[in-house]
Amino acid sequence: MADKWQNGAVRVFNFAAGPAMLPTEVLETAQAELTDWQGSGMSVMEVSHRGKAFVACAAAAEAKLRSLLAIPDNYRVLFLQGGATGQFSAIPMNLTSPGDKVAFLNTGNWSKKAIQGAQRQGLTVEVVADEAESKYTTVPAPGAYTVTDDVAYLHYTPNETIGGVEFDYVPQTSVPLVADFSSTILSRPVDVSQYGLIYAGAQKNMGPAGLVVVIVRDDLTGHARPTTPDVWDYATMAANDSMLNTPPTFAIYILGLVLEWIERTGGLAAMAERNQAKAAALYEAIDGSGFYKNPVAPNARSWMNVPFTLADPELDADFLAQSSAAGMTNLKGHRSVGGMRASIYNAMPRAGVDALISFMADFARRHG
Amino acid sequence: MADKWQNGAVRVFNFAAGPAMLPTEVLETAQAELTDWQGSGMSVMEVSHRGKAFVACAAAAEAKLRSLLAIPDNYRVLFLQGGATGQFSAIPMNLTSPGDKVAFLNTGNWSKKAIQGAQRQGLTVEVVADEAESKYTTVPAPGAYTVTDDVAYLHYTPNETIGGVEFDYVPQTSVPLVADFSSTILSRPVDVSQYGLIYAGAQKNMGPAGLVVVIVRDDLTGHARPTTPDVWDYATMAANDSMLNTPPTFAIYILGLVLEWIERTGGLAAMAERNQAKAAALYEAIDGSGFYKNPVAPNARSWMNVPFTLADPELDADFLAQSSAAGMTNLKGHRSVGGMRASIYNAMPRAGVDALISFMADFARRHG
Repeated sequence: MADKWQNGAVRVFNFAAGPAMLPTEVLETAQAELTDWQGSGMSVMEVSHRGKAFVACAAAAEAKLRSLLAIPDNYRVLFLQGGATGQFSAIPMNLTSPGDKVAFLNTGNWSKKAIQGAQRQGLTVEVVADEAESKYTTVPAPGAYTVTDDVAYLHYTPNETIGGVEFDYVPQTSVPLVADFSSTILSRPVDVSQYGLIYAGAQKNMGPAGLVVVIVRDDLTGHARPTTPDVWDYATMAANDSMLNTPPTFAIYILGLVLEWIERTGGLAAMAERNQAKAAALYEAIDGSGFYKNPVAPNARSWMNVPFTLADPELDADFLAQSSAAGMTNLKGHRSVGGMRASIYNAMPRAGVDALISFMADFARRHG
Repeated sequence: MADKWQNGAVRVFNFAAGPAMLPTEVLETAQAELTDWQGSGMSVMEVSHRGKAFVACAAAAEAKLRSLLAIPDNYRVLFLQGGATGQFSAIPMNLTSPGDKVAFLNTGNWSKKAIQGAQRQGLTVEVVADEAESKYTTVPAPGAYTVTDDVAYLHYTPNETIGGVEFDYVPQTSVPLVADFSSTILSRPVDVSQYGLIYAGAQKNMGPAGLVVVIVRDDLTGHARPTTPDVWDYATMAANDSMLNTPPTFAIYILGLVLEWIERTGGLAAMAERNQAKAAALYEAIDGSGFYKNPVAPNARSWMNVPFTLADPELDADFLAQSSAAGMTNLKGHRSVGGMRASIYNAMPRAGVDALISFMADFARRHG
């Protein structure tokens, strides 16, 4: 079927939440040079991370990220391992001492996991806003919570991947703002200067799994607890250009290709326009269907992850089987939410969203 | 030049210490299916780690590793992130409490880094054997050290990647034996039952950087310090099949292909024969040259990493330039040792070693 072909390659529209779809052009470039990178006679996987070629590759990826996100000079960019889940431990280790207080906004599953990580490191967690009452379908209003000056930082999750809930504003606070950007980074411009620390697993909008990017303000480095593993000590890793030990070289290389692709397609402003339009079209189709439902408050609807339910849950299996047969994969919702979820990250083309909308309308007609 | 072509691909003989050469067949398989894995219309990088296809891929990699190394059933195999350097912290976190005593054999740079990691976690380190006197060109004799029963474990480095120093025996002790196998795993059969814990970064003999494999005896799990990051807690990761969070999926996939290649080429016994023969030929060429020298005691010479010096260090630059032009790359020795180093891991074909020997003889003739 026609949707399966993109740029000549057999490809489906993959709505997975992460690891997620990558731009076909990025994969084709990686494929072309997989056994012979830059005419070296070696794969990028086989070259020394300390050799000139790879050092330049990693530096170029960092420079592109800095340029796209307009990262100020007083922020370090770190390429680490262990995922965002590793950072749930590493952030407390770097920014606090045991017994310190930290504040959290709890908007769903990933907020909760970050809270547990902080508690494991001996912190007193103050949940200053908790959206339990709405079953995590809302974000707290800007005036609905207070952050006192005695907390080490305020942590929040700008986009909850599972719930499909997204902040439509940046929390304002006098303490450093720490944010898990895993499923929203590079989806639009961000004012990095409003944050103390931004972190994001690569496997949604940046590249393959196995890389986590940390963007941290200088003054928040250099205070790690003595037992912090050196591979997670921000000051140590910054001083070593993230190469204290062997970095995940292939993932950094793919990140570089993805960033080039974003530049080539107009940068983050153009990306934001496309993402907003894709999401708007899908939410409109859901809301207007009388068959599908999205539970999230309109102001908090995610551009990246769109959960929806069918009028009759008995039809879920048919929906999944038929959509998959039509070249649209991984639409099953997270087990904690049920129903469907369409993750429509940067690499999901508009054509993929249009194909889904068209399939949904047809399915509703046949079963409605 | 002829050495550049292997299986039709333009490829050099890459003597890098790690990330290192991978089998050309493995790269070609990965290349062929990079945009469409198993007919899914998705790259293996894009599929969900919790989907059936990838779960089967990871399980198959584990099963192949278990089969090749004959790993007993009471050992867990973990696929983690953060490298062997991460494990320098994670092992103390999982196996000890602050203030505990541990014993180390110090045979070079990587032993020292492991010692520093243990000290950072508040352990009292007893270095029961230190090869400083030989400038780390020897291993301690089996009877030359005593390990008391009050240490939590004995740690050693079976192969020192930088010094090219390898143990020709397995230390016998009543406490758990912990070993950094990064640069020697899968080079020959190993009796896993003699170890409490084996760990190895993937980027030498297993796959791309970004994956560290831990093989740990059941009874050593479940005792992690409360502040151990959950992504490094052996019991937690074992209970979650290493998928508490998103694993480095692409690296695990490549590991699976490498393990298939080892099976296909005769398993670890055949690998050991080839490796021993490659190393013997190279050491013989060095020793018989009157121009090159390897400083390591004959019983402690590594099969994997062969450092050597030229009669005149002034010729180093010429040697590197000419060998590189002849399709043999990354022969420069580690800065702490100087001279040259030929890393001849599993994926380095005999033809590569023969080409190097032939080049070395010619170079010596021209400059001797």
